[in-house]
Amino acid sequence: MAIWQACAPFLRQKYILISPRTQSTNARMTDDAPDSLIPYDDVVQEALRAVVSRVLGDVAAGGLPGDHHFYITFKTRAPGVAIPVHLMERFPDEMTIVLQHKYWDLKVGPEHFEVGLSFSQVPAHLHVPFSAITSFVDPAVDFALQFHVEAESGPEHHEHAENDGPTIEANEGSNVVTVDFGRKK
Amino acid sequence: MAIWQACAPFLRQKYILISPRTQSTNARMTDDAPDSLIPYDDVVQEALRAVVSRVLGDVAAGGLPGDHHFYITFKTRAPGVAIPVHLMERFPDEMTIVLQHKYWDLKVGPEHFEVGLSFSQVPAHLHVPFSAITSFVDPAVDFALQFHVEAESGPEHHEHAENDGPTIEANEGSNVVTVDFGRKK
Repeated sequence: MAIWQACAPFLRQKYILISPRTQSTNARMTDDAPDSLIPYDDVVQEALRAVVSRVLGDVAAGGLPGDHHFYITFKTRAPGVAIPVHLMERFPDEMTIVLQHKYWDLKVGPEHFEVGLSFSQVPAHLHVPFSAITSFVDPAVDFALQFHVEAESGPEHHEHAENDGPTIEANEGSNVVTVDFGRKK
Repeated sequence: MAIWQACAPFLRQKYILISPRTQSTNARMTDDAPDSLIPYDDVVQEALRAVVSRVLGDVAAGGLPGDHHFYITFKTRAPGVAIPVHLMERFPDEMTIVLQHKYWDLKVGPEHFEVGLSFSQVPAHLHVPFSAITSFVDPAVDFALQFHVEAESGPEHHEHAENDGPTIEANEGSNVVTVDFGRKK
């Protein structure tokens, strides 16, 4: 799907969108410019992953302020992900966790975060590199970052917000950063 | 001007836009959400300034690849800016430089870059903190970042692309990152 098709639902809202020209040829709209020799898409994506790192680091140090809470979606088979086998079996492609009431031991490193969460009353320790994250959402203020993560297979539908905790309706993202360049590698 | 008004011209193009909810109240469109206790706008802006740092650092080390070149606009009176007096007098608010053919001694530090440029055949040394930059454009691939910099006075029109060099028509930004939150501080 072309990036502009993916973005269309957001056009009626406040939003954050990113669609550099260095996307794949079939995603271009009107131009015939050469591919960029400067990897702007990678650089921007890397820069915005630092937002997740910074925000989680602040929360690890000071807790969640106010009503802020996070939905974090990541590729379970991305390099460096370490989660219990029963979770890997249940979520063979992607899973979403909620950092709100029930989490513990949140630690943030330069390249990853780790956290304790409860799934069906069973505690689990998750180790997730930032590079595995496909989505970071704070429903309290409709802030969202979306990333493109190369996967061996196509995206699959997965169950949502799986760890224990109150069900919160995430608002439709009004403020979405999309960094999905649809690149062929 | 509300952010969505500022953004309207880009809606017909491929683009990059950022408009978190943490903008000023009168820039909100439809919601009545509380202000964010997490400074997403600052964090995103800071993260995207790292893109400029990273790209300039690569160019300082390896030169400009292909047809890439940069239009960099900055507030001449922002903290840390050091430019010759005659340039300050000519551009009391904002100036745009071009890094393309005629530049030398480009150096990139953690918080600033410095470069030699010629203005009307007079060489000048410029020291510019990344925090002073309001716009970074690479016309070769229509990549652009736009930042909001707090200024003591309102924005003024300024002459464009002032240092010596061939005149290059910048395309209307097809891929624009706008980080202008219109915040009241």
